[in-house]
Amino acid sequence: MSRVKMIIKRMKVKNELVRQIMGEVLGTFVLLLFGCAAAAQVKTSRETKGQFLSANMAFSVGVMSAMYLSRAVSGAHLNPAVSLSFCVLGDLAWIKLLPYSLAQILGAYLASGLVYLIYHDAIMEFSGGVLTVFGPNETASIFATYPTDVVSMQTSFLDQVVGTAMLMLCILPLNDKRNAPAPEALLPPIVATVVLGISMSMSANCGAAINPARDLGPRLFTFTAGWGIEVFTCYDYFFWIPLVAPMVGGVLGSIIYLVFIQWHLPELEDESESEEFNEQTKEERRVRANDREYNEKFQYAVSRTYNLYIINIL
Amino acid sequence: MSRVKMIIKRMKVKNELVRQIMGEVLGTFVLLLFGCAAAAQVKTSRETKGQFLSANMAFSVGVMSAMYLSRAVSGAHLNPAVSLSFCVLGDLAWIKLLPYSLAQILGAYLASGLVYLIYHDAIMEFSGGVLTVFGPNETASIFATYPTDVVSMQTSFLDQVVGTAMLMLCILPLNDKRNAPAPEALLPPIVATVVLGISMSMSANCGAAINPARDLGPRLFTFTAGWGIEVFTCYDYFFWIPLVAPMVGGVLGSIIYLVFIQWHLPELEDESESEEFNEQTKEERRVRANDREYNEKFQYAVSRTYNLYIINIL
Amino acid sequence: MSRVKMIIKRMKVKNELVRQIMGEVLGTFVLLLFGCAAAAQVKTSRETKGQFLSANMAFSVGVMSAMYLSRAVSGAHLNPAVSLSFCVLGDLAWIKLLPYSLAQILGAYLASGLVYLIYHDAIMEFSGGVLTVFGPNETASIFATYPTDVVSMQTSFLDQVVGTAMLMLCILPLNDKRNAPAPEALLPPIVATVVLGISMSMSANCGAAINPARDLGPRLFTFTAGWGIEVFTCYDYFFWIPLVAPMVGGVLGSIIYLVFIQWHLPELEDESESEEFNEQTKEERRVRANDREYNEKFQYAVSRTYNLYIINIL
Amino acid sequence: MSRVKMIIKRMKVKNELVRQIMGEVLGTFVLLLFGCAAAAQVKTSRETKGQFLSANMAFSVGVMSAMYLSRAVSGAHLNPAVSLSFCVLGDLAWIKLLPYSLAQILGAYLASGLVYLIYHDAIMEFSGGVLTVFGPNETASIFATYPTDVVSMQTSFLDQVVGTAMLMLCILPLNDKRNAPAPEALLPPIVATVVLGISMSMSANCGAAINPARDLGPRLFTFTAGWGIEVFTCYDYFFWIPLVAPMVGGVLGSIIYLVFIQWHLPELEDESESEEFNEQTKEERRVRANDREYNEKFQYAVSRTYNLYIINIL
Repeated sequence: MSRVKMIIKRMKVKNELVRQIMGEVLGTFVLLLFGCAAAAQVKTSRETKGQFLSANMAFSVGVMSAMYLSRAVSGAHLNPAVSLSFCVLGDLAWIKLLPYSLAQILGAYLASGLVYLIYHDAIMEFSGGVLTVFGPNETASIFATYPTDVVSMQTSFLDQVVGTAMLMLCILPLNDKRNAPAPEALLPPIVATVVLGISMSMSANCGAAINPARDLGPRLFTFTAGWGIEVFTCYDYFFWIPLVAPMVGGVLGSIIYLVFIQWHLPELEDESESEEFNEQTKEERRVRANDREYNEKFQYAVSRTYNLYIINIL
Repeated sequence: MSRVKMIIKRMKVKNELVRQIMGEVLGTFVLLLFGCAAAAQVKTSRETKGQFLSANMAFSVGVMSAMYLSRAVSGAHLNPAVSLSFCVLGDLAWIKLLPYSLAQILGAYLASGLVYLIYHDAIMEFSGGVLTVFGPNETASIFATYPTDVVSMQTSFLDQVVGTAMLMLCILPLNDKRNAPAPEALLPPIVATVVLGISMSMSANCGAAINPARDLGPRLFTFTAGWGIEVFTCYDYFFWIPLVAPMVGGVLGSIIYLVFIQWHLPELEDESESEEFNEQTKEERRVRANDREYNEKFQYAVSRTYNLYIINIL
Repeated sequence: MSRVKMIIKRMKVKNELVRQIMGEVLGTFVLLLFGCAAAAQVKTSRETKGQFLSANMAFSVGVMSAMYLSRAVSGAHLNPAVSLSFCVLGDLAWIKLLPYSLAQILGAYLASGLVYLIYHDAIMEFSGGVLTVFGPNETASIFATYPTDVVSMQTSFLDQVVGTAMLMLCILPLNDKRNAPAPEALLPPIVATVVLGISMSMSANCGAAINPARDLGPRLFTFTAGWGIEVFTCYDYFFWIPLVAPMVGGVLGSIIYLVFIQWHLPELEDESESEEFNEQTKEERRVRANDREYNEKFQYAVSRTYNLYIINIL
Repeated sequence: MSRVKMIIKRMKVKNELVRQIMGEVLGTFVLLLFGCAAAAQVKTSRETKGQFLSANMAFSVGVMSAMYLSRAVSGAHLNPAVSLSFCVLGDLAWIKLLPYSLAQILGAYLASGLVYLIYHDAIMEFSGGVLTVFGPNETASIFATYPTDVVSMQTSFLDQVVGTAMLMLCILPLNDKRNAPAPEALLPPIVATVVLGISMSMSANCGAAINPARDLGPRLFTFTAGWGIEVFTCYDYFFWIPLVAPMVGGVLGSIIYLVFIQWHLPELEDESESEEFNEQTKEERRVRANDREYNEKFQYAVSRTYNLYIINIL
């Protein structure tokens, strides 16, 4: 066995960022595989093997599973809006925002491809072989999100801002030692429940992407797989809304949490009490410490601008 | 960063009651945003993107999220009937009952407004632009609660008394160290499950408000937003029932818990054992101690009346 | 306040059995209130405000709530079949079986009455004022359970035996320190999930009472409230099946657990390890010890018969 | 009582493998009883007493219940694909793979038989007495899984590989001390949630068996109970796919977890820290140690071949 162990050891990825990217790719892959496969199941079975609610629930199970899978590796952001929020909060190095986001989009793209393979026969049967964005036999909405006919651009934008703000506002307290947090080891199902809540209440207008990677990855896949450029041009170039609005909403929700709740919570009295509540693994703390260090260097370089920016928005 | 920190420090709200009000406003806002948005999603999609059950579930997720958000700040009552019950139980200062209730109504009002903005296009499409309380295209029930045609005033009143009594009867043991309580850090999802149970079993008659703020806030919003005075006058001025009946029911449920269960539970033997079970943060204990002190002063002033009152009802 | 405290102290029930009876009455009341109210909501709204699944879920929430409410007082059996099983297992004094069962039936009866009051208007509207057991407007099934037209007596009996056996087989390991038990403080939601599972899989034939009190209490209520003697005579005197079969099934399931799993689990090595896992309150242990003592006295009196009986069935 | 205790002691199964087989038989029996009974309830009630989702949920409850029942005895694999994966991972002796699998198939067979007994009357009514695999009154799908008409052999195979790979990929991190695991005592409901997710998203094509025993046991039962040889020959001998594809998928998912996540996680620093996280009972550790020992002996015998095999696939 020693030879096997040696091989494993040699294959161990030493670079932290590479490991984190692997974690985000695989995590987002799992999230989207559950989510898009459920959408395909509901759509192609014409709601005989599931309904809107079961697709929401499957996305929620995807969140839970992806978080257990990769949060020790990468924090399981699974969402560029979450990564951006953690950058603003100082918990992720700004320099990692782009790689994280690209990893998430890649994971979403790959999952879409696999869902297409699994449901190829059913999609062909359902759509009569015509891959389209419109009409009763459209199948594009299995992958990316699209608005209803009646909703305006501004409302869609607001909808995505509010949805993602709710996401950050509701998940930040879950892990805040100064608040009354959820058990560390049960964060994944509780975060998943929040996501389920958002899907059940804010997905009527434009599908509750609240996650640029969850939307762009599958959209790119459908573009390359035969649905054509319409996936980008339809609904008056709607596609940019689930890319931009969640970024705005995530930061907004984080700031609301800080300003209205977090700043006013009592400080943890001493390190020993903090330890008591602290169920993070050493690794997590090390990574987080690393990220804070990166951030401090980065912020040093842009400190004046950054300080002014923070002061302005707060 | 020191400048930012200084600003944060200066913005920290020192007044406990102001912080608690902020907590209740934001908590009730989150509760109602999930709840009313889900009702809007189900209604305006004509049950294609959710059904009665999913709206119940979204309200339940709202309870969970709001509790994690604000219970370290304000106890996350989110409901004047709960606040009143805690006053009667001696866990909230009577002097705080009104500010708490107003904060909850304000949070509910603001959430209704935001739901209206997000679902404006869909509501206009659904209702044909006519905002009304009656008929197949009514949209008032997205926000406040309304009775069915067949239910009488007395039954509605009883329904709300029983629903809120069940709420208090089922959530008081969850946090009672002398009983067999739920894990402190998992109270929010368990309370949310109780609320889901009430929605699934006692909402057929008049919508299971069991919460004056959850009902009055949205009703006031619809009144100001174009549904008109009908939201108050309809169904023979039904609106007072979800205001008054839950207050009665909450106190009744609390008393039933005290009289039939709590009084007969064994005392916690000593402080050290009590500590063992005590997972409250120091802050929570401090606030509760403060409230008890307030209450004692208040009760001192009205002691004879109050004593007689307690003796009479028990 | 001292006068109030004195009154409370004087009202404290010293007799253990009386307290336990109060716990079982209130617990079963809560269970049935959730369950029957949900059945009434689904039925009288003609499935517009819930469906079969939501009624199952509400029963499950009732189990959870009732367990948190009364398990520190009475163990929260809520079911004569469970009480009988615990008698056989030696965890409940045989002498308490009858009082427990009567308390459970009383709680179920009272809850049915309250559900009838709350849903009186809706039931009258739905049934056209005719309270009957048969036909499309029957309302008896809101309360007690009834078989389908196609199911035979023998199959119904087997169905109830198997359902209750599954109940005991699935909940006994949850609290067995020699097995891999669930967290003590989370037993109520997990037991509730098991009950939900049984409702979703074994209620098609005759309604999954799996609980004589859950069935007889409401049946007695409907008998006294105007549905008439038909609630007992219908379907060829079906009513005895949910009384007898669950008692058989509960004991059978317990024995299967003992014979196939429990006997073969390793003994807990020493008291200190046992303590480590032991999260029961002192009170629970005291009551259980009392019950074992009672049982030993009782068994002494009937020891030869009892021993032979055990040997025969095992 | 001493005579009873003696009898119990004499009946205690000393042979570890026999105990494990009993655990797997009973566990898989419970899993399938919930699952197939729910499918029978939905099917024979023509979706009036449940729908596709509730059958998925009942299977999930079955997973949870079966895991609590038998994981201290046998690890609660309940699935030959899981057992094979644990063999590859070195946590189950290869020599036990066949007995485990046969036990699982036996448990599934017995459960199918009992479901048939319980739902005999309803199945006869539904099918008009004709037990068949095809047509609107088919009842074979209550037991085993069958593909849709449109799905090809290759897609079915891929579907089952992906579904089972997702299962292993999502449950391995839950119990991995080097990752951020779920609470040991709550593994059953979390694994059950993962299985629910797979049922809601990957069961449209061919029923999401993801478990050879879950499929073969019931199929054998229907073969012997009157559905005839068609259960094997139909859909172009489809039956081999849920036997073979899950075995491939389980191992594939395990390897993906190892290669992309586990190898790169930090080592647990020392034994004491490992102990801290280690909530396994002594028995579990003993059994696992035994299995590792078996495996080492087994691997010694086939060491060259085995090493080469591992090296090749990794």
